[in-house]
Amino acid sequence: MRQAGRYLPEYREVRGQGDILDTCRHPDLVTEITLQPLRRMAVDVAILFSDIMVPLAAVGVPVRIEPGVGPVVDEPIRTAADVATLRPLEPDADVPHVLEAIRQLRKELDVPLLGFAGAPFTLASYLVEGSPSRTHERTKGLMLGEPRVWDALMDALVAIVLPHLRAQVEAGAQALQVFDSWVGALAPDVYERSVFPYMRRLFDGLGDVGVPTIHFGVGTGELLAPMRRAGGDVIGVDWRTPLDAAWDRVGSDTAVQGNLDPAVLSAPWDVVRAETDRVLARAASRDGHIFNLGHGVPPGTDPETLSRLVDLVHERTERREAPR
Amino acid sequence: MRQAGRYLPEYREVRGQGDILDTCRHPDLVTEITLQPLRRMAVDVAILFSDIMVPLAAVGVPVRIEPGVGPVVDEPIRTAADVATLRPLEPDADVPHVLEAIRQLRKELDVPLLGFAGAPFTLASYLVEGSPSRTHERTKGLMLGEPRVWDALMDALVAIVLPHLRAQVEAGAQALQVFDSWVGALAPDVYERSVFPYMRRLFDGLGDVGVPTIHFGVGTGELLAPMRRAGGDVIGVDWRTPLDAAWDRVGSDTAVQGNLDPAVLSAPWDVVRAETDRVLARAASRDGHIFNLGHGVPPGTDPETLSRLVDLVHERTERREAPR
Repeated sequence: MRQAGRYLPEYREVRGQGDILDTCRHPDLVTEITLQPLRRMAVDVAILFSDIMVPLAAVGVPVRIEPGVGPVVDEPIRTAADVATLRPLEPDADVPHVLEAIRQLRKELDVPLLGFAGAPFTLASYLVEGSPSRTHERTKGLMLGEPRVWDALMDALVAIVLPHLRAQVEAGAQALQVFDSWVGALAPDVYERSVFPYMRRLFDGLGDVGVPTIHFGVGTGELLAPMRRAGGDVIGVDWRTPLDAAWDRVGSDTAVQGNLDPAVLSAPWDVVRAETDRVLARAASRDGHIFNLGHGVPPGTDPETLSRLVDLVHERTERREAPR
Repeated sequence: MRQAGRYLPEYREVRGQGDILDTCRHPDLVTEITLQPLRRMAVDVAILFSDIMVPLAAVGVPVRIEPGVGPVVDEPIRTAADVATLRPLEPDADVPHVLEAIRQLRKELDVPLLGFAGAPFTLASYLVEGSPSRTHERTKGLMLGEPRVWDALMDALVAIVLPHLRAQVEAGAQALQVFDSWVGALAPDVYERSVFPYMRRLFDGLGDVGVPTIHFGVGTGELLAPMRRAGGDVIGVDWRTPLDAAWDRVGSDTAVQGNLDPAVLSAPWDVVRAETDRVLARAASRDGHIFNLGHGVPPGTDPETLSRLVDLVHERTERREAPR
């Protein structure tokens, strides 16, 4: 998940009150914020500081990130004419600041750098609803009621997301995560028809980039098998699905990432340790588990808890670790 | 799900702008609102108009339902001292208006009347958070970090919910639904430890009421088996889990209820019909399916669509129907 964030006082100081999308346009700020959690925690990977709406803003979508709300699009995309306003991303011209930040970071880092992007469905949800939605009702309405408009929207989004991901690797990203955060709102049949083909095309388009890819969602217990078929070397699993059940669905030769409930982080340390051990115990049965939270760090989290958590996971897994 | 609601113009007229909890204190209004959807739709069951917060308000919890927000508790329950303020429900003294409405309705109705209550976890979430929450972070924090306070809270809630459900049956309710709407936010291990024992006690306490019970939640794919073990003659299944997969988890001798995605209702009629047929096709493999939405009716729904949906389901299932 995003490593840096409001739980870090030094993040709040650098970020101030402005729109996160403005911060993302300054490579020096992006580099500094990306490095902040690494000064506190012995994490194995650095996660590029960015936002899934960055490439949409870069092709001219009038989006802003409202504090405490999330992405707001004042003129939502709901018709074929709206979709026609979306153009493909040209990374060197549209997101040079992202690529520059990646190049800067590679000079500073001694752990791998992870780039990322939002998946077409999750981006479409923000574009169609106009703001974060619990039910994604308008998005589903468009998808089911106007499949041709939906298909055009997903086409347009693949033409934004895929170049964005490829360019991050070219600039130096050593792994990629694709966030289909809200796709768990869909019935499996609907996923197969309206989302799977685009995720397949996206991961096929990443086939030659030469870095590992992670395919992530929340509440995706029933979608793990089709998500695996769509692509990704690693499948994200939130805390709702135990890792052994997840492996039964994605196949035991597939790596999985997760799956500590972030809400656990506000409990006393002995509870955090016990819940972490519970995740690791289920993971121990097979190879190929990346320990992670099942979703983002809650803003009220004590940074010290996260730091202890990273050390705990290293301590517990050292004996199973492959030689570097 | 709740049958009457903001999608009905006649509901909006009767309800006005006041707090729903006030409306629930007037048996004549409850009777009228409960009957409204039955005048439009040939549904097989009437659902008592009420709210899951009614019994909590009745024992003195300072809760109000804010339009567009949901239940708000200005002094959330987070300590042992807070929990000690909750007393058991005495239905005849505390919710006489609910029981009177049920008696009135039984005189009017020629279909069975369904009573309901919120489950302890879902009620606890509102009490602990103080308002609706996406992450239920404080609730999980209390559950994991202060298990003794949590257990006392769940004990107190069972002592409110169980008498409320039993009294509804004594007054004339012919079936009961228990709404553990948000329990799908929990990891299965956590459910087993912190929720299952109380749901088991609740359903055990309904063992002799002589009416069918429905055990409902949203996003509960991984919890269907323990929910079934906890109790309920019928297990609710939202649209995320196909009915055949649900039956694999709860056992094919268990009845299931669901599972059309309510978001489908805003699509054109041919889409509603196709998605309904998809649900019915999966249901056809076994006996014991109650067709329903996977969650509540969206406020923007055209009542005519729901009416056609009810007729469609009757038409499609007539040949499979048992003699009355």
